[in-house]
Amino acid sequence: MTAALDTRVRWDELARPGPVAGVEAATVHGARLSAARYVLEPNVVVPEHAHASEEFGHVLAGSLELRCAGAVERLGPGDAFLVPGDTPHAATAGPDGCELLECYAPPRGPKEGR
Amino acid sequence: MTAALDTRVRWDELARPGPVAGVEAATVHGARLSAARYVLEPNVVVPEHAHASEEFGHVLAGSLELRCAGAVERLGPGDAFLVPGDTPHAATAGPDGCELLECYAPPRGPKEGR
Repeated sequence: MTAALDTRVRWDELARPGPVAGVEAATVHGARLSAARYVLEPNVVVPEHAHASEEFGHVLAGSLELRCAGAVERLGPGDAFLVPGDTPHAATAGPDGCELLECYAPPRGPKEGR
Repeated sequence: MTAALDTRVRWDELARPGPVAGVEAATVHGARLSAARYVLEPNVVVPEHAHASEEFGHVLAGSLELRCAGAVERLGPGDAFLVPGDTPHAATAGPDGCELLECYAPPRGPKEGR
């Protein structure tokens, strides 16, 4: 008999209202990184913000317009990006919303609410 | 006029044969983390290995049997997991193969081949 994996991440059980209205956030914190699944309702705007952690993102479904360092790009399913630490960035979900996977290193504190 | 995002990650352009036969790996290295997309052919076995970096994984498509710290679990699309640093783990792709997104912190060196 084998035990179940104790490091399994169950996004649906972790899902909570996120820091921006219209965003559901499920976040897990490891020792060296945080990972999150975000579900953005259609056309939701995530205002410009910055954080010390480096950020990696990958669009799972829908689309996202990402604005970062004076650039803008519309991303669809399978598209991914890196945002360096301390770099202001903002995003707007597309007309069908967006499901987004992200990782942060170093980990982001739970007190940041995401 | 706005510039294109210079931190866009283009998996298809980064795809290379991985360290295990039957695995295609696309990897990008940031300052604080590495991210990778793996495409495993059906039933491919990734032998047990360990690395200092903490590892986060999320199954994009197909399925994966993950073995870690005496536990085993079959993961499908949308399932995710964390593997602590220096923890031996192994995996076997399901009968339809597996597309897997992973992040590592700290970043893994290109010399590790993944």
